[in-house]
Amino acid sequence: MSILIEKLSNGLTVAFEPISGMATTSLSFAIPAGTAGDPEGSAGEGESTLLSELIVRGSGARDSRAFSEALDTLGCDRSTTVNANHVLVSATMLASRLNASLELIADMVLRPRIDAEHLEPVRQLSLQALHALPDDPQHLVMLRLAKLHFPSPFNRTGYGDEAGLQSLTTEHVRATWKRRAVAQGSILSIAGAVSPENAMPKLQELFGAWGGTNVEAKTFGPRSGGVDHYTLASSQTHMAFAFDAPTESDPDSFGFRIAAVILGGEASSRLFTEVREKRGLCYSVGASAATGRDRGVLQIYAGSTPQRAATTSKCIMDELVRFESGVNQIEFDRAKIGFKSRMVMSGESAMARASTITSDLFRVGKARTLAELTAMLEGWTLERVNDVIKRRMSAAWRATMSQATVGPNAVADEV
Amino acid sequence: MSILIEKLSNGLTVAFEPISGMATTSLSFAIPAGTAGDPEGSAGEGESTLLSELIVRGSGARDSRAFSEALDTLGCDRSTTVNANHVLVSATMLASRLNASLELIADMVLRPRIDAEHLEPVRQLSLQALHALPDDPQHLVMLRLAKLHFPSPFNRTGYGDEAGLQSLTTEHVRATWKRRAVAQGSILSIAGAVSPENAMPKLQELFGAWGGTNVEAKTFGPRSGGVDHYTLASSQTHMAFAFDAPTESDPDSFGFRIAAVILGGEASSRLFTEVREKRGLCYSVGASAATGRDRGVLQIYAGSTPQRAATTSKCIMDELVRFESGVNQIEFDRAKIGFKSRMVMSGESAMARASTITSDLFRVGKARTLAELTAMLEGWTLERVNDVIKRRMSAAWRATMSQATVGPNAVADEV
Repeated sequence: MSILIEKLSNGLTVAFEPISGMATTSLSFAIPAGTAGDPEGSAGEGESTLLSELIVRGSGARDSRAFSEALDTLGCDRSTTVNANHVLVSATMLASRLNASLELIADMVLRPRIDAEHLEPVRQLSLQALHALPDDPQHLVMLRLAKLHFPSPFNRTGYGDEAGLQSLTTEHVRATWKRRAVAQGSILSIAGAVSPENAMPKLQELFGAWGGTNVEAKTFGPRSGGVDHYTLASSQTHMAFAFDAPTESDPDSFGFRIAAVILGGEASSRLFTEVREKRGLCYSVGASAATGRDRGVLQIYAGSTPQRAATTSKCIMDELVRFESGVNQIEFDRAKIGFKSRMVMSGESAMARASTITSDLFRVGKARTLAELTAMLEGWTLERVNDVIKRRMSAAWRATMSQATVGPNAVADEV
Repeated sequence: MSILIEKLSNGLTVAFEPISGMATTSLSFAIPAGTAGDPEGSAGEGESTLLSELIVRGSGARDSRAFSEALDTLGCDRSTTVNANHVLVSATMLASRLNASLELIADMVLRPRIDAEHLEPVRQLSLQALHALPDDPQHLVMLRLAKLHFPSPFNRTGYGDEAGLQSLTTEHVRATWKRRAVAQGSILSIAGAVSPENAMPKLQELFGAWGGTNVEAKTFGPRSGGVDHYTLASSQTHMAFAFDAPTESDPDSFGFRIAAVILGGEASSRLFTEVREKRGLCYSVGASAATGRDRGVLQIYAGSTPQRAATTSKCIMDELVRFESGVNQIEFDRAKIGFKSRMVMSGESAMARASTITSDLFRVGKARTLAELTAMLEGWTLERVNDVIKRRMSAAWRATMSQATVGPNAVADEV
């Protein structure tokens, strides 16, 4: 497998990874209109989320109903989500329906109607989603953790601000989409059953005349960090911890991700074994590293009974201290095999490949084939991983911690 | 693709579906030790769930830690879940690790240690999961709905009974596993990169001497049905409705499933369009049909604000009444294309195929290739689907409704 990447003259990056033997095609389309570019708080935070709902409600010649019917008639399975940097459109369809699906998706991104009649229902849905967050405390605690740990405006929840959502008008969101949904900085990756020679002319036809200049959001200042507690009469105490991690382009990033798996990413990981299996302190515990373009984070989540919350938190902190001394050969070999297996599995999913390629193009400006990623992995040894742990997961690293809890009581005092 | 099915002399059914071009292998292993066979309530309900956690904690020569390390060293990604009829073991690994993974899984099923030292931590985790249910009200409402709508003991939540979990001893659960984890009635399907000629001797070696007789659970009596409300200070009112549906072997089952997609299974479905898009009543709404071996169910879920709950419920009921008049050609064609696309997509996932084959073997006693399923789908016309709707989704059908709500107030009175 090889990846073909082309940058159109208008700044849109397109990438193809044909995978032999597949009958379906997946695409991952990132448009630089993410939450970090929203107005602050009551000035309109939540706009990008509102837009991600509005653009699927009719475009070009089709009203809302006709548009979703057209996509369903193609058997095009799609979703639209938002993160700090992008509105992300993902879709999977039979290869024979790729061009027809692309026409509709181009309509949606370039010519959304954003009719006035849809604003109020979409606003109500967005407010409802915002108000419903306490009904999912595990999700809520991760959002509150990100709020603490990332600098504003890259720490937004994606659910918007109540007053901000209330303030938005059709004229305003229309103008915003026109200004922010631009070719420059957009990335469209297509993987699976796709012929670049056939798809490229279609993409030129659909997106060639697209224009616009992407203005990236900037940080307002340092993160707040520290400790946050949200009191909720939930059954469990949900606790989450964040620590700095390398960016994806940092030479340490792969080694750090291997370390994170050993710490809390698999059934035989340190946290799972010590906190869940051996001591039965909590049903769910785990760690994962996200290595972004501008910042990285290692997050740990645990849900325990309120009574065991302090012990659980203490047990996690003890494991972090112990982790600084490094991992052993068996742990390293195991984590490496796990990475390899997951890479092969992801190579059998067109959607996984399309979204990884889009993410790589944004984070490191290039896309890596599975063969390249495997070669990168092979370059890592136990010694190199332990060196990364020593340098980047020390006491100074632990001091970068932010902590959020959701539950009947805070656990901070007892830690 | 074709499916090879063999029934061993001890009653274990094994099935293979090799998929060309894949490098990974997935397996779905159903053991007839599901929740319906647990003792009732305080007598030990929750035993099968406890067992599904205990069997992964050491088997044969390996203690708990050595066992999970061995699987992680193979890069074997696995999970163990429980439903009414089975404990289900699912796993995906590189094809070269299939035999070694099967050895470990055979150890786990045939020779689990179930050491006394693990009972208490596992019991605590199970109790915690039970107590944590109100932290996920959307999940809770579906469990409470099933409780109403299915006859006992096929209506169990899978989280067990508090007193039942407390009552279980190591001796008891060990004896139960020995009695219930038997070859007869077990089904093991392997899909993806697999050679039946190579795998079959291994399966004979590992499972040939397995024995035992499967005693199926029987219903205690009719379902309770009716209306249930669980008061919770949640942000949303979570409402769920259940109606009877055909079993999978019923000639109407495929047509009923097509109808369910049109009712509430896709973005242009009736419920999504009317309740969510047009009226903005609730963020999530949808319907899905499950066609089992002994009973089928159509379930509808919606989450709305408490203020809009009665209107949402009313709107759903109105759509059900309207649905009885049938669907149109465009809706039918669209649903059919959606089915076709999803079938092709599932054919590209070894895990999806392995679990469908296991499920089919249990539900209808045979496995169907994608080509056979596609041919079945092609046999359906608008007229036939509308005939199924007329006969099986009428006022009499709506009267089979059970209704569960979780939230600050019941909505039943206002419906």
